[in-house]
Amino acid sequence: MNLAEFTPFFNMNLRRFLDELDLYEPLKEVVSYTPLAGGKRLRAYLVWELSRFTGFGEENALKTGIAVELFHSGSLIHDDLPAIDNDTIRRGLPSSHVKFGECKAILAGDFLMLYPSKLLSSLDIESSSKLTLLKLWQETSLEVVKGEFEDVFPENKSREQMERIHGSKTGSLFGFCFAAPFAGRKEEKFVQMRQLGLRFGKLFQMMDDIKDVTSTETELGKTPGKDGKQDKLTILSFESLEEAQMKVKEIFLGLLEEIDEFSDLSREMVNVYDLIARR
Amino acid sequence: MNLAEFTPFFNMNLRRFLDELDLYEPLKEVVSYTPLAGGKRLRAYLVWELSRFTGFGEENALKTGIAVELFHSGSLIHDDLPAIDNDTIRRGLPSSHVKFGECKAILAGDFLMLYPSKLLSSLDIESSSKLTLLKLWQETSLEVVKGEFEDVFPENKSREQMERIHGSKTGSLFGFCFAAPFAGRKEEKFVQMRQLGLRFGKLFQMMDDIKDVTSTETELGKTPGKDGKQDKLTILSFESLEEAQMKVKEIFLGLLEEIDEFSDLSREMVNVYDLIARR
Repeated sequence: MNLAEFTPFFNMNLRRFLDELDLYEPLKEVVSYTPLAGGKRLRAYLVWELSRFTGFGEENALKTGIAVELFHSGSLIHDDLPAIDNDTIRRGLPSSHVKFGECKAILAGDFLMLYPSKLLSSLDIESSSKLTLLKLWQETSLEVVKGEFEDVFPENKSREQMERIHGSKTGSLFGFCFAAPFAGRKEEKFVQMRQLGLRFGKLFQMMDDIKDVTSTETELGKTPGKDGKQDKLTILSFESLEEAQMKVKEIFLGLLEEIDEFSDLSREMVNVYDLIARR
Repeated sequence: MNLAEFTPFFNMNLRRFLDELDLYEPLKEVVSYTPLAGGKRLRAYLVWELSRFTGFGEENALKTGIAVELFHSGSLIHDDLPAIDNDTIRRGLPSSHVKFGECKAILAGDFLMLYPSKLLSSLDIESSSKLTLLKLWQETSLEVVKGEFEDVFPENKSREQMERIHGSKTGSLFGFCFAAPFAGRKEEKFVQMRQLGLRFGKLFQMMDDIKDVTSTETELGKTPGKDGKQDKLTILSFESLEEAQMKVKEIFLGLLEEIDEFSDLSREMVNVYDLIARR
C-alpha cells in the first residue's frame, strides 16, 4: 500500500475508533475534531509499512498508528493555543480553541496526549514487548513536550539547540514509529530503528521549516511564515534557502540507503519526499 | 507514621526527586514549582500506609506517591488556567500561570500529567503486576480529565451527574492510591480496594466543597466561594450545609468500618477527617 492508498484506509479506521469511544459526548466532539481534520498520516503509515517486515500484525500496527496520531493531534491543539503559538488555522480548518474555546481545547489536548498509553497497553503482544514499547512511548511523549517548551523558550540560539529541539519536538515521534514494530525483536535493532526514525523526523522538520517560507496558506493548511515572525530556530536561521534545500536532499538520500532492506517503504519514501518537497 | 510525620518526609523525597530530574532547567523550574508548593500529601500517604500491609515496598510506595502527586499538580495547573477555573492562588502561592505565564504553565502541566506513566514503569515489581498497575493508571488519568471537562460543562445539573463528576475528578485518583499497593494481589482485592478508594475520594470532594463555603482564603490556600460563583455542581447544590455535614460524617463512619483491617490507617484517617472537617 502506498501513502495515497493508506491515508483514506487509516482515516476510515480512525473515524470508527473515535466513534466507538465510550466518552461523554461533548468531550468526544472536541477530542475527535482535530484528529479527523486531516493530515497525511505519514507517522501511522511508517508504523504500518515497517510492521510488514516484523510480524507486528495489522491490528497492532493500526492501533499504534492511531495512538501516535491522537497524541500528535493533542500536542498540536496545545501548541496552537493563543498563549503558545497562537495559530488559528490547523489542517485547513479553524484550530480547536477557535472552534470550541480554549477551555475545551486544553482538556481535549490533555485527553489526547494521555490516551495513547491506554491504547498501546491494549496491543496483542507479549508482556515484555509491551513494557518495552510503553517505556519508549513514555520517553517519546515527554520528549515532545520538552521539545515544544525549548522551542518556545530557547536558552541560546545555537545550532546545537536547534538540533536538540527538532530531535525532541519532531524526531522523537518518528523514532517511536520506526521502532514500535520492532518491540519484540532484539534490543539492538529496536534502538537502531529508533535512531533512524529520529533522523528522518529531523529531516521532515527541516522540510516543514522550508515549506513554511515557500508555501501559501492553502497549501500549508496553517498560517505560513510564522516561524520567522516568532523568531523560531529553524534550519533557515543558519543557512540560505538554497543551501537548506540542497542539504535536505543530501540527508534524505543518505537515509534512503539505510532503509534499503525495506524495499517497498524505501520506494514510497521517495514519493513522500517528492510530495513534501514539490510544494 | 501519621500524616503529620509523613508530609515532611514525603516532601523531602519529592524535592530530591525533582532536583535529580534530568531536564532543561527553565522547564524544570516550572515543573517543580506547583508540586513543591505544599499540600497535605494525603494521596501519597494512603499509598504509603496501605503498602505496609501488602509488601509493596517502601521505594515503590514512595515512587507511586510521587507519581500521583505530580499528576495531581499537573492537573491543578491546567484547572487553574484563566480559560478553565481562573484561579490565581494555589496552595497559598500564585498559581503556575500567574508566576510563569500561561505558555509555560500549559506545557509544565502536560509534562506533569505524562510523567507518572514513566515513573510507574520504573517500579521494582513483577511484569504482570506492572501492567495491571499501568492499566489502572491509564484509566485513572483519563478519568480525571473527563471529570474536569464534565465539571466545567455539565449537560444537566442532576445529582447523578454530580456523583459521576466527583467520582471521575476526585474519586478515581483516590481509587488508584487505594489499589496500587495491591497490584500483585488477587484481582478481586485490587478491584475492591479501588472501589473503596473511589468512595473515599468522593467523600473528600464533599468535604472540600463544604470547606469552600466555610473557610477563608488563608485556611484554604486558594480563592474560597468560587464553586458557588461558577455555578459548579456540589453537594450543596442539593442539600443544606447542615444536612451535608451530617451526611459526610455518616459516610465516613461507614467507610471507616471497611478499612478496619488496616488498623493504623483507620486510626489515622480519623485524624485526617478531623483535620479537614475542623476548619
